[in-house]
Amino acid sequence: MGAEIDLNSDLGEGFGAWPLGDDEALLDVVTSANVACGFHAGDPSVLRRVTERAVERGVVIGAQVGYRDLAGFGRRFIDMDPRELTNDIIYQIGALDGFARIAGSSVRYVKPHGALYNAVVTHAEQAAAVVEAIRSYDAELAVLGLPGSELLRQAEAAGLSVVPEAFADRAYTAEGGLVPRRQPNAVVRDPDEVVRRSVRMVVEGLVEAIDGSGLTLSPRSLCVHGDTPGAVDLARRVRKALTDAGVSLRSFV
Amino acid sequence: MGAEIDLNSDLGEGFGAWPLGDDEALLDVVTSANVACGFHAGDPSVLRRVTERAVERGVVIGAQVGYRDLAGFGRRFIDMDPRELTNDIIYQIGALDGFARIAGSSVRYVKPHGALYNAVVTHAEQAAAVVEAIRSYDAELAVLGLPGSELLRQAEAAGLSVVPEAFADRAYTAEGGLVPRRQPNAVVRDPDEVVRRSVRMVVEGLVEAIDGSGLTLSPRSLCVHGDTPGAVDLARRVRKALTDAGVSLRSFV
Amino acid sequence: MGAEIDLNSDLGEGFGAWPLGDDEALLDVVTSANVACGFHAGDPSVLRRVTERAVERGVVIGAQVGYRDLAGFGRRFIDMDPRELTNDIIYQIGALDGFARIAGSSVRYVKPHGALYNAVVTHAEQAAAVVEAIRSYDAELAVLGLPGSELLRQAEAAGLSVVPEAFADRAYTAEGGLVPRRQPNAVVRDPDEVVRRSVRMVVEGLVEAIDGSGLTLSPRSLCVHGDTPGAVDLARRVRKALTDAGVSLRSFV
Amino acid sequence: MGAEIDLNSDLGEGFGAWPLGDDEALLDVVTSANVACGFHAGDPSVLRRVTERAVERGVVIGAQVGYRDLAGFGRRFIDMDPRELTNDIIYQIGALDGFARIAGSSVRYVKPHGALYNAVVTHAEQAAAVVEAIRSYDAELAVLGLPGSELLRQAEAAGLSVVPEAFADRAYTAEGGLVPRRQPNAVVRDPDEVVRRSVRMVVEGLVEAIDGSGLTLSPRSLCVHGDTPGAVDLARRVRKALTDAGVSLRSFV
Repeated sequence: MGAEIDLNSDLGEGFGAWPLGDDEALLDVVTSANVACGFHAGDPSVLRRVTERAVERGVVIGAQVGYRDLAGFGRRFIDMDPRELTNDIIYQIGALDGFARIAGSSVRYVKPHGALYNAVVTHAEQAAAVVEAIRSYDAELAVLGLPGSELLRQAEAAGLSVVPEAFADRAYTAEGGLVPRRQPNAVVRDPDEVVRRSVRMVVEGLVEAIDGSGLTLSPRSLCVHGDTPGAVDLARRVRKALTDAGVSLRSFV
Repeated sequence: MGAEIDLNSDLGEGFGAWPLGDDEALLDVVTSANVACGFHAGDPSVLRRVTERAVERGVVIGAQVGYRDLAGFGRRFIDMDPRELTNDIIYQIGALDGFARIAGSSVRYVKPHGALYNAVVTHAEQAAAVVEAIRSYDAELAVLGLPGSELLRQAEAAGLSVVPEAFADRAYTAEGGLVPRRQPNAVVRDPDEVVRRSVRMVVEGLVEAIDGSGLTLSPRSLCVHGDTPGAVDLARRVRKALTDAGVSLRSFV
Repeated sequence: MGAEIDLNSDLGEGFGAWPLGDDEALLDVVTSANVACGFHAGDPSVLRRVTERAVERGVVIGAQVGYRDLAGFGRRFIDMDPRELTNDIIYQIGALDGFARIAGSSVRYVKPHGALYNAVVTHAEQAAAVVEAIRSYDAELAVLGLPGSELLRQAEAAGLSVVPEAFADRAYTAEGGLVPRRQPNAVVRDPDEVVRRSVRMVVEGLVEAIDGSGLTLSPRSLCVHGDTPGAVDLARRVRKALTDAGVSLRSFV
Repeated sequence: MGAEIDLNSDLGEGFGAWPLGDDEALLDVVTSANVACGFHAGDPSVLRRVTERAVERGVVIGAQVGYRDLAGFGRRFIDMDPRELTNDIIYQIGALDGFARIAGSSVRYVKPHGALYNAVVTHAEQAAAVVEAIRSYDAELAVLGLPGSELLRQAEAAGLSVVPEAFADRAYTAEGGLVPRRQPNAVVRDPDEVVRRSVRMVVEGLVEAIDGSGLTLSPRSLCVHGDTPGAVDLARRVRKALTDAGVSLRSFV
């Protein structure tokens, strides 16, 4: 009986006249779609299209929630009142859920985006705000995040289903954190290396940290990127290598 | 067995640091709250608070949907692609519905706001877009609008429940349309006159049009305003005069 | 002594994480850059970069002003109060002018974008609003627009310098209007044809209208597009064909 | 020969349908108007009106620049790339300057707003970004800020004219910082006390810190608030008390 893994990726990140990424192609690769909800990316017509396509392909829909910051694509930390953050996240989940339901499914999980993702690794108040939003909206929603993060810790304590993820192309610190993007070698650029690491993380539960030490991981989902043509090809290769290694690709819900 | 009427008003129209109207006071007057959904007014924390207070008071929650135009408060016609308009409206209903459900209720009806309200009186494509949004989201939602409008005609044809409304303080043309705001006497300014007209519209089904002719109306809801202190007082007077005249105040859902 | 023409194109239309078009490549083709100002496209960092690059290459900077509608990219008519439109346009010109001045130049002309461009062909009040904005801000600014439009007629009457333009790739009606984009054949797709028409419009002052009749034009500027890789190549070919035909490429300011 | 002081206040903070504060009344009180520029508050028509009224009354116009955050009114720290912050500020100054020039004046100084104001007290990179924006736009612009702040220190080092301000109604720490608003007694609520402190700060250069110790100040400007009816009255009283004490009210430019 082999390993199984979910593949997740960010989708629905276009806005108005501005496309971003190849949603169609990615939906043939992933088993879970983190769909932007309009606060940092995504407009209602993008949400409509992506949720419909996802349901057609049997891809599970998650809410990629972020700060209200179109100009910054949600990549800038905003020191918000946690209660307002809770409400901003409920709003985003609800908006996406409407489209998911029209398409014949519903939002099944939540993954914070960008600066919010990074903030809730350590920021207890904002992590609590995210957990409170999910719990209030629907306590059946899973929470996708970084293993060891405040977010997953608090979500678990609140009785939510948590899904630890690994990143196909990101370098790790010896402690299991992501090497910040502003540091050199934060992103693994060599496609063969990305594929190799992905398989090893999923099959062996191991990855080499940036200092050369071995790091133990038990991801239930693997995050791949698709915002460039090369990225989609690489995501396809990761998927193929995993199935070739006998790994079942299956959503976590 | 006397007449019955619903009282509706616009609520939740503040945004961030900018309050608008006295939501608390109005919730003691109306039976239906048209809650702004964030595209022309209303932010997530406003939606949260208004839906909670509405449920506490047993006031029915409706989605006050509008064009995406915070700077114009939804009061400027936008010549949108009808499919995009449909999606913009679904997004708004879904976002509000999330808060309504958390508060223990759900969105029960939809009322277009401002320039969209006026557009769908005659604009067949935009009216169809609104109907399509409501039908897709939840065909049980009622549609609140102007009697004789494209919106109500198409909504009825689509099998939706339609609710014709009258305006306590607006002048009518002989044909039953609203006198456009840019014309003199579009708004009835004398409070006593507003109260008198309101009771007559509800009890007798009659109002004097701007040309002096008698106009027959059968409103199931009466729209009152609350965006100024004086307006809230007037809404209270209208409510009292209606109950004094033996009219039951009851939501249409 | 040969003909001379200005080549203008839309630039600076990215926003945040969303690029659009190849500003760098286009700046080697055009003599005038219609730079988006942030209301329908363009963010401050885009404006900074484009104005700097334009000045480095000696390309003249114009303000591509539009409706406040990022979600619609300024392509949707908004029925605004003309006084507010005037102020929205002044704001946009001023914002761009700050960057143009820092780069060592200044805004030299104004060209409405998208739905506003189309509106001011016939909408007298909005045309007047644009003219009033330009006149108030700096009566030395030229106005780039469609020959025969309300905008150019009113701008001329107000004593502003007007620059009639032709479109390299758009079909014309027999009356000199643009065939609306929603009609078939509104855009000339064959690159050779685009090049041929461009040269003929500039050198002979003639173009074949969509009904086969001959249309006389006296453009002082030719609009080329650059929002796709193919478009930039085509713009380069148009430029080369013009210079090969002995036409001088020179800004109108 | 008596003391002299400038009175500054935030103006132009309405947006669209949402008014804020009484700009007209405040313009009769202050000598310098910090006019919001549209990123956290203020729309083009507000900017137009306030700049015109300010010039009519001889009130000096400054740019109240802030984070791009209408929903948060600029009161939430955003961890921006400093280069983008520089460009956001240039954009805001340029936009306001257009209106100031049309009104017959020009922007004469810059004062950061809200969370940006607080950030640049200590955040060296963001302070440098603000200084760089001002220096690039117009090195003649003065910088209004907190004495001892990174902003004023860096602005002075860059050769800009700096204007230290005091707050009529804020409590001070013994070190000269503002007591954070989330702490009790951060704001002096007693109007008589506000007036007394204001006069003492200006005439004696002294204020009692929150720990009871005496704090020396040399403000060249005093900040008063006007966002409530009571605030405007209090600002009037502060002004009267200062003139009664023989202080000349004069802008710093």
